[in-house]
Order: sequence, then C-alpha cells, then structure tokens
Amino acid sequence: MWSALEPVGRHAPSGGYRRFAWTRADHDLREWFAGECAARGLDLVEDRMGNQWAWWGNPDEAARAGRKGVVTGSHLDSVPDGGAFDGPLGVVSALAAVDALRDKGFQPDRPIGIVNFVDEEGARFGVACAGSRVITGAMTARRARSLTDADGVSMAEALTAAGRDPHDIGRDPETLDRVGAFVELHVEQGRGLVDLDHPVAVASDIWPHGRWRLDFGGEANHAGTTRLEDRQDAMLGYAGAVLAAREAAIQHGCVATIGKVAVTPGGVNAIPSHVTGWLDARGASPRAVRRAVADVRAMVEQSGGEVMEESWTPSTPFDSALTARLQTRLGGIPILGTGAGHDAGILANAGIPTAMLFVRNPTGVSHSPAEHAELGDCLEGVAALTAVLEDLAGDTP
Amino acid sequence: MWSALEPVGRHAPSGGYRRFAWTRADHDLREWFAGECAARGLDLVEDRMGNQWAWWGNPDEAARAGRKGVVTGSHLDSVPDGGAFDGPLGVVSALAAVDALRDKGFQPDRPIGIVNFVDEEGARFGVACAGSRVITGAMTARRARSLTDADGVSMAEALTAAGRDPHDIGRDPETLDRVGAFVELHVEQGRGLVDLDHPVAVASDIWPHGRWRLDFGGEANHAGTTRLEDRQDAMLGYAGAVLAAREAAIQHGCVATIGKVAVTPGGVNAIPSHVTGWLDARGASPRAVRRAVADVRAMVEQSGGEVMEESWTPSTPFDSALTARLQTRLGGIPILGTGAGHDAGILANAGIPTAMLFVRNPTGVSHSPAEHAELGDCLEGVAALTAVLEDLAGDTP
Repeated sequence: MWSALEPVGRHAPSGGYRRFAWTRADHDLREWFAGECAARGLDLVEDRMGNQWAWWGNPDEAARAGRKGVVTGSHLDSVPDGGAFDGPLGVVSALAAVDALRDKGFQPDRPIGIVNFVDEEGARFGVACAGSRVITGAMTARRARSLTDADGVSMAEALTAAGRDPHDIGRDPETLDRVGAFVELHVEQGRGLVDLDHPVAVASDIWPHGRWRLDFGGEANHAGTTRLEDRQDAMLGYAGAVLAAREAAIQHGCVATIGKVAVTPGGVNAIPSHVTGWLDARGASPRAVRRAVADVRAMVEQSGGEVMEESWTPSTPFDSALTARLQTRLGGIPILGTGAGHDAGILANAGIPTAMLFVRNPTGVSHSPAEHAELGDCLEGVAALTAVLEDLAGDTP
Repeated sequence: MWSALEPVGRHAPSGGYRRFAWTRADHDLREWFAGECAARGLDLVEDRMGNQWAWWGNPDEAARAGRKGVVTGSHLDSVPDGGAFDGPLGVVSALAAVDALRDKGFQPDRPIGIVNFVDEEGARFGVACAGSRVITGAMTARRARSLTDADGVSMAEALTAAGRDPHDIGRDPETLDRVGAFVELHVEQGRGLVDLDHPVAVASDIWPHGRWRLDFGGEANHAGTTRLEDRQDAMLGYAGAVLAAREAAIQHGCVATIGKVAVTPGGVNAIPSHVTGWLDARGASPRAVRRAVADVRAMVEQSGGEVMEESWTPSTPFDSALTARLQTRLGGIPILGTGAGHDAGILANAGIPTAMLFVRNPTGVSHSPAEHAELGDCLEGVAALTAVLEDLAGDTP
C-alpha cells in the first residue's frame, strides 16, 4: 500500500509532499483510498463535506441497535513540502489493522469504520481540520465556502472545480451518530517516545494553543537617503519580537514560533512602513503559554507595535475512560500530550469518545520531507491499533 | 501641469503612486509628456529603449557643429506607493524652465533637450535606471529582456504588450552623442537642505552603495510539537542580523536597511527552514560601508548563515567643472552627496558631463505618499534650473 502512495503529490525539487485539498493530487489519493476499500469489500460513503467513510458492517442498523461503530483513520493531505507519514500512516495502519483482524478470523460485534478526513492540514485555505470542523459545526459551511487560497480561489470554487456542489456542505449529525468511538493513529511529531524508549503511546490531550498577530508600524522611506535618526523602521520591532518570543518560551517552559512575516512595501531599497508577524504559542500549561505571550506583548508594545489574538484553543482532553482502556489493553504504554491539532480533537470537542495512538518518530521532525518512522515501529502501531479495534468492536457491553 | 499629473497611477487606498514601467499608468504619463512637448513645439524622439527626448533646436545639426545639446529632465515612473515628487518634479521643472526662458526671449545657442527616462525606479523588473542603463550599455539588452516582474512577465513580454519590439532595444550612441551636458533636478530624499536652511543644492556625488543577500538555514518542523532544544529556526538568525545591521550603521556612520525578507515554508505553524534577507548599505565613505557590512557578516556567520554580495557600486562623482559652474552661477548654493541612485549617475558613468540639483524636502520622506516639497521651494528649483540652462545653452565657448 505504502509504495502506491509514494509518488502522489510529491514535489521533486524538495522531496516533500504537496497534497492540498481539492487538487489533482488530492483526487488521486481519494481514488486510491476508494480502491483499497473496495478491494476489502468495505462500503464507502461520503459525508456532507466529502470525508470518506468505509464500513465493515452496517453502521446504521448497528446504531439503531445501540451498537455504534468503532472508527479509525486519519487524513491523506499534507502541508507544503510535508512528509510521507503525517496522515497517511493512520490511514494505511487502519487498512492494515482490518486485514490483520480478518486474517485472524475476527467477527466484529460493532461495525468498524475507516475514515479519510479531507483538508486536515488547512494548507490551501488556512483553516486546519476543515473536514471535521464542517461536519461537527465547529466551522459554518458559509465560512468554509468563503475561505480563499493563495491564488484567490475560494473553497466554494475549488469544490465546484472538483465536481462538487458547495451548497451541499454542512453539519452532518447522521454521519457522526454512527460513531461510538474514534481512535486516530498518528506519527508522533516530537521526540517524547524517543526519550521514553517506546514505539507507541496513547495521547492524553492536545495542548492549549493560540495564534497572535503582531503589527509594527513605521514610515516608508528611501533606504539610501534617510538618516538613521529620522527613520521609523518597522523591521526593528519585528526582529526584537522574534528574539523575545524565543526567550519567553525558554522562561516559561512552552514553545513559541514566528514562522510567517509580511513586509510593506517589501522593497530592498525601502524602509519598511509595516511589518506583520504571526506568533504561534503552545504548551502543556495554559498559564505558561499566557505568560510567554504576555512577555512578547510587552516587548511589542514597548516598540510601538500591537498584538491581536487571532485564536485561542484551551486544552482538549481525550476521553479518559477510552484512553485508560487503550492503555490497559496495550500493556501500560506511555501517555503523552501533544502540541499539534488533529481531527481527533475536533471530534472530541463534538462529544464523541475519542483517543489517539502515537508512533515513535526517531528525529521528532514533522511537516518536512525528513519526517520518518521506522518500519518496525509502524508495525507495532498496526499491532496496537488491531488490538484496540478487536477490544472495542468485539465486546458489546 | 502638476494638476494633470495628480490622478495618474494613484492608488486610492494608500494615496501613493503605482506608476510602473510599460503599464497603463506609464502609457498615460508618456502621452501627457508628449502632449506638453507638442504644445511647446518641441521635437519628440524616442531612443532605442523608449526614453523620450524633446528638443528645442536641432541636436544633430548642432552636434555636427560642435555644439552638443544641454539636457535636463528626470522620470515619471514611481516605486510602489511612491510620492508625487520623485521624478515628476524634474520633468515638470524642465518644462517650466523652458517656458521661463521663452518668456524672457532667450534664444539658445545650443539646443536644449528634456528627457523622460523610462523605468528609473526598477519597481516592476527589479533593476533601477533600466532606461539609461540599456542605452549606455551598462545593462545588456539581453539581460533587460529577460528580467521578470512579480507575475512572471518578462520585460520582453511587457514591451510587446506595450506595442514595442523587444529586439529594438539596445545601446544608443547616436542619442547619447547629442548630449553635451545633463542636469537632473530632483526632490531631495533626505533632510540635508532642511539642516542647511537652503531651498536648492547642487550634488557632489552618489554615495557608494551595495546590496547583500543574507541566507539563514534551519530545519522545517512542526511549531507545536518540536522542543525548543531540537529546533533549528532560521528566523532567529535573521532577527539578530536585522538588529546587528542597525547597530553597525550607528557604529560606522552610514545607513543600513533590511527591507525585504523571504521565508520558507512561511506557514504560521511551521518552523522556518530558510530565511533570506536583503541588506542595503550606503554611506559617504566606502570604508564605513565596508566596515558596517563586515560587522553584519560576522553576526550572520556566527549564527550559521551566509552573506553574498549582489552588487557594489563605488562612489559616482558628478562632473566637477560642471558642478562648480552651477554652484558659481547659483550664488554659492550648498553642495550635497546623496545615497540614492539616479539616471544622472548612469550618464555620468558613461562619460557625459553630468550634474544634479536637489530641491528641499521638509520632512526628508521619499518613496512614500508623504513625500513633499513646498511650492516656494519648487519655484526656487525652477528658477535655478532656468539660470543653469541659460548659462549652459547660451554661452558657446
């Protein structure tokens, strides 16, 4: 399965993947998923956002009988120049786990589903987990349709170009009602498991995280003729904030990143009249994150800039009973928090019992062509997911 | 004249001008110039790059007789969101000076020319003074044709779209041979005249200046899940260089600016794997500029980055005899160096006796909608230019 996926959406110069929602690469990945599901006799249905759900067993009948389905899966899209594992590992492991269950003659008592969520990374339209957000109502269909990509193409136009009706998208309680539990397997995006010397962990929660916009005003002027004492150079405040953000993260024990910047007018020979930076900050403790951001804010305001909070998401705990059950079933494997958002977090916030499994990442690198997991660890992940599905789908209380 | 120019290429939201080479705004400005010249009975010819030359008198006949023409003028294009004066003041003042000479019944002994250079700012294709560079051979026609704008349109394509044949462009010694002296009037782009309390100055030289590219490598990674100690964040080195450049400029008494930056991958939630900044440094003393750049280089290399020199232009002195003659004729007005490049510098390097006049700028602001000169000072500039033309064109030795 893995080898068939390798060439899709690969960008030759970087070696990374560019698998963006509603593009040709995305289409090919969806076709691949449909083919794998058909080869296994799974029933494929799409929800109102185009997320693909493949069922072993009849989920509606089972739900009516009080035996809602057990769902696993992840996503196939990528960030720009992303790695091969973030997303696809969860989908491929789900298919492999179903194969393993069938090989051992397992007959599920609850239906088992595999989901491929669309547009998890938000690489094209800027909002992560768009597929799960729309069907749970965490993002309205109207807002989703109006999001635009870097070329000014709206999601509504992209959906139309992909042969879909943008007015079909929206909340889908019927789909969510089939899901009794959701377990997402994902490559770890840090080195927690390396430090713990374990191949697989279960997730405790998604860290609180937020995004802030930092604006610095200056005065556009000629870079050759304006004396230093007459300058108001917006780049200087920005540079100070970049360094302050790292210092604040060290001080308060969280992470802080400025990875995007926009400069006006942006000419080599023009003093910047405006610089905007975006701060991403996360940590295990909301208080630590808040304190770090307060330090950055003080620095920004001291240089005459402004800080605007664009988003703040408190900690998303996964279902404690489900997480404990996984941990017990898997022989007391470690439990880890994560700084990354996932569709599993959106489903957890929508009230669905949700858990996650992480597979060791030897370098911790993610969202990069260098993202990696060893084959042995991936197989441990599949074994763990198989055991979890067997447990959850085989035992109707 | 001024009021007719005001609306052309004005960008309503910023109040600044967007008059880029070979665009509709540029076309309208060229038509305006042709109309003003026709109204004065001047003979308009275009050279091989499309620079417009309007003649009072027959320059070829005069050149054959050893009385080469006296030319003034400037350019009508602008930087993005530029001001109203940089360029147009020199063209309008030239037309006004011709009017003044005719009003007083002056009969030139040498022909007087007014030039409108195309693409002085290089705002669209990245190379300043493209019009004068091509006709003097400072830039080859091949290189000019291959330059591209932000939309990927080459200058060759832009010329074709403007109804021109890109293969016509090139060195034009015939045009240059008509020019015995060139005097460009320009709004000052600093506050030298404010400090000296004078409305008009004559230029001594264009400061030595250069452009350096600063590259910082890092490792793309997830902004939420990568521990601080595992990060290689290219933005940190960049921020340090921005602050180091200002510090070095203060230390060595020159100016240094980082006004343009490019970040890869440039996502809010991705640690930058590569940041490129462009350093512009200039000063009255080449040694001061070199020392400041050496300081920045040390800082960049200390953080693992690299510095590449993209350009270095030594001081361009204007013609000393011509400059002295202007200064004497104008009653000992001040003499100032400048950190800005001009077509006058390109012509001086091509061996044409060249001088410049600067008109006071009360705020020193340039390349910005706030760029300004008082009407009284502009009229002083016209009077000075009139006197200079009368002197140079009226006295054939």
